[in-house]
Amino acid sequence: MTDRPSRPGGRSNRVLTAIYTAVGELVGQGADKISFPVIAERAGVNPTTLYRRWPDVNALLEDVAVAALTRDGESVPDTGSLEQDLTEWADVIARDITRPERARYLRAMVAARVDLVATCVVTDTRREQAAEMVRRAHERGEQPPTVQQILDHVVAPLYYNVVFALPLDDDHAHRLVHDVLAMVR
Amino acid sequence: MTDRPSRPGGRSNRVLTAIYTAVGELVGQGADKISFPVIAERAGVNPTTLYRRWPDVNALLEDVAVAALTRDGESVPDTGSLEQDLTEWADVIARDITRPERARYLRAMVAARVDLVATCVVTDTRREQAAEMVRRAHERGEQPPTVQQILDHVVAPLYYNVVFALPLDDDHAHRLVHDVLAMVR
Repeated sequence: MTDRPSRPGGRSNRVLTAIYTAVGELVGQGADKISFPVIAERAGVNPTTLYRRWPDVNALLEDVAVAALTRDGESVPDTGSLEQDLTEWADVIARDITRPERARYLRAMVAARVDLVATCVVTDTRREQAAEMVRRAHERGEQPPTVQQILDHVVAPLYYNVVFALPLDDDHAHRLVHDVLAMVR
Repeated sequence: MTDRPSRPGGRSNRVLTAIYTAVGELVGQGADKISFPVIAERAGVNPTTLYRRWPDVNALLEDVAVAALTRDGESVPDTGSLEQDLTEWADVIARDITRPERARYLRAMVAARVDLVATCVVTDTRREQAAEMVRRAHERGEQPPTVQQILDHVVAPLYYNVVFALPLDDDHAHRLVHDVLAMVR
């Protein structure tokens, strides 16, 4: 993954911010044809900057989507109870990905995934966060579900509802956490 | 939803089949710009046929995706045990939506959902099927999970993996069924 545009300093960061902003505006406007020349013109950069950095438009689109969907320094809740940790975490994810701008990015990212890939950066981030909460639960002597169960039964339904434009509220997110904990009781 | 093209007979069905096939080919080829004139030309029909039937291209795209993702007369397993019913059902869904052609349609459908809608035809179909299996489990005196739990913890993770191009195999599908049943044990 490339540097996030929110990180301060340097010319290359200013260029990256301009590129990411241009892509965000084009996706947000539902642009039909997002090409390197179109992005470069809007960002005010030379198209060769794009051709050098990304193999194709989909790769750039995905970097932008990932940057929009995961935030620098997003901390994992540490409340002393896995149930409370997962509840707060699910709330943050649900509120974040249901914002119209983020939902649009998320769908653009899905559309860009034309071929099967072995990993997905969004999932990797969520997997690491879940692993941290599960590790702490083990240390406290709790019987947590597995990381994969948290991905399958909390993360997947949250994202599923957003990508299929189904309603998603806090109550739903809390029920998912309740369900995954009921599996190991 | 419109009639499915697989239903035999009649001129209107032949026209619909030609239109759906044209859309499928264009989506499958990763066409950038899928418009009514482009579809009409490939299908060999008059563009007014399309303008009369669908409000816009996204509506047509969604009908095609739904037709590709749900099948006429798809029967719900009835084995005498909810665990076996759900296992067979999850297998059918997983095998169906991981086929490259269907995965492409699914992602095209996600991309078309630019605004929040209250219902999703794919989910509705799965909800009805789950309700039938849950009803029979109740009749047998089993303690089944709720229909929403089956959607959240079996259907959602299956579709999530496909739309994010993550691996999905039978073992994974079976674990989801095992997990959702463990919630009510």
